[in-house]
Amino acid sequence: MPANPVVAVAGATGAVGQEMLLVLEQRNFPASRVIPLASSRSAGNTVTFKGQELTIEEMTENSFVGVDIALFSAGGSVSEKMRAAVVGAGAVMIDNSSAFRMEEGVPLVVPEVNPAAAYTHSGVIANPNCSTIQMVVALCPLHKVAPIKRVVVSTYQAASGAGALAMAELYNQSRQFLNDEPLVIEKFAHRLAFNCIPHIDVFLDDASTKEEWKMVAETQKILDPNIVVAANCVRVPVLRCHSEMVNVEFSAPISVEQARAAFEAAPGIILMDDTATKTYPMPGLLAGTDATYIGRLRRDPSVEYGLNFWCVADQLRKGAALNAVQIAELLLP
Amino acid sequence: MPANPVVAVAGATGAVGQEMLLVLEQRNFPASRVIPLASSRSAGNTVTFKGQELTIEEMTENSFVGVDIALFSAGGSVSEKMRAAVVGAGAVMIDNSSAFRMEEGVPLVVPEVNPAAAYTHSGVIANPNCSTIQMVVALCPLHKVAPIKRVVVSTYQAASGAGALAMAELYNQSRQFLNDEPLVIEKFAHRLAFNCIPHIDVFLDDASTKEEWKMVAETQKILDPNIVVAANCVRVPVLRCHSEMVNVEFSAPISVEQARAAFEAAPGIILMDDTATKTYPMPGLLAGTDATYIGRLRRDPSVEYGLNFWCVADQLRKGAALNAVQIAELLLP
Repeated sequence: MPANPVVAVAGATGAVGQEMLLVLEQRNFPASRVIPLASSRSAGNTVTFKGQELTIEEMTENSFVGVDIALFSAGGSVSEKMRAAVVGAGAVMIDNSSAFRMEEGVPLVVPEVNPAAAYTHSGVIANPNCSTIQMVVALCPLHKVAPIKRVVVSTYQAASGAGALAMAELYNQSRQFLNDEPLVIEKFAHRLAFNCIPHIDVFLDDASTKEEWKMVAETQKILDPNIVVAANCVRVPVLRCHSEMVNVEFSAPISVEQARAAFEAAPGIILMDDTATKTYPMPGLLAGTDATYIGRLRRDPSVEYGLNFWCVADQLRKGAALNAVQIAELLLP
Repeated sequence: MPANPVVAVAGATGAVGQEMLLVLEQRNFPASRVIPLASSRSAGNTVTFKGQELTIEEMTENSFVGVDIALFSAGGSVSEKMRAAVVGAGAVMIDNSSAFRMEEGVPLVVPEVNPAAAYTHSGVIANPNCSTIQMVVALCPLHKVAPIKRVVVSTYQAASGAGALAMAELYNQSRQFLNDEPLVIEKFAHRLAFNCIPHIDVFLDDASTKEEWKMVAETQKILDPNIVVAANCVRVPVLRCHSEMVNVEFSAPISVEQARAAFEAAPGIILMDDTATKTYPMPGLLAGTDATYIGRLRRDPSVEYGLNFWCVADQLRKGAALNAVQIAELLLP
């Protein structure tokens, strides 16, 4: 990998793609060139990057000649279609879709958790699901103190996970609701304004959702195949940070103090936990931040070795764009 | 108890008090007279009941002479202050506050779960916490199929749990947020619009909240002292129905089919669970309903005998006013 790679951003007009450009700029990623790619519909439009207007190019199989790193967030089918072209051009695809995550030989990477896996790639590195990323960032330091046996997690997921138009839908729908106007429902299965929808991604045969399955399977691939997870995913009327209530059962003792120290020492985590001052992370107030925020840490006396905590992270940043750029940083010489 | 008791509603101007009057009317409770009581501030105002205007009386120690049933929802300190006067007058106090719930000799009653307990009262019957009520309604039929060992529950609680002014705050604050106006935050510790607040009621020494403690202690008192509960309570920007993601571990086998049949046969429960048609209960769409709605029922393979489900109930009705009136109905001859 050159010290100043050429970086393509595939899906540059989407919520995650735009955030990828922003993160590349904010982290001063040493790209020699950044190429925004999108469908023919957006080609010719411009995006701003480091104060310059970059012209969006139509993504074709020929777009990746001379590219070193291709950050993909254009949907699983686009990733599948373009994979051979990207890898054939000698570029590394860092893919935000779920298309390749569970494929053997494709590393699934959260830089704070399993950075070494990134170096085993054969052209494709998968960026995990947003709700998985923040959970494994939080679980990893605990798992080093005492082995995690079982996790029960309930999510409170923001509209941003369904894209920029979904965020706009929540925004507009809330106004429609307050004004007693007809509600426009297009991006979610039901109304999201002033509601909770216990359903994210498609249903599977066992009546779980694919989002729930991802949290189980991806946690095992990234962190430890021995950890069992019961995941319950719910969409809430919040714009862009995901929250998770996490209940962890360990197979050895771990005190609240040990957990607190582990969180404080862990990369990518900010502990925000002081009951006396009503301090805990909240999704409405953390948009645009990079850390996985943890609060409400306490013992769960319902099992021998148990802890409860609450964690919040910006779905578009740590849950998607930031994690992808962090993976790209791992590839730099 | 006379067949046509005199019923006082203490706290008649609050969100729950108003709903109590509505439920008494809708269920055609055979009261010979209904007396709305409130603080001196509201005395002289009227409330509508069965098409008539009832004048609100100021609540004093003398208000309960001739009263048979006093439905209280005026805060714990008012209940404590008035208890002797109510019981001394020979009335039965059905109290929605948390003041007496764990007191020995005070039954804590959910009519679908432990109706017999109501008959053991010595003048006071406690109405459980809203989030507990809907959970024990849901757990009770399962516990009869296979003993419940442990419950991990995460709540998605509506603004209504904090009262009528809190509902108005969410409403107004959402509009302020959408209009980029300054946010008025009075009834909650933080902004609730487009946010989640992982904190309901006061913090206890073990860093849990009193709301979480209630779900543990009240479930044990109402349903079974052997059930351990890990409860995590979160306020979400929803107006008046509480939702709960419930993970249950049993000490004996129970199939999804058995659980489904148990729910279908249970009083007070409506199963709303069809993944093919994206059917599941949602809090924004169930305001004003009486049942505990259950969906997303599925096996939890992370333990030997486990189930997950999602349950929704109107906090002001089953979570408060309806349950109190159902207790009153148990007392009728």
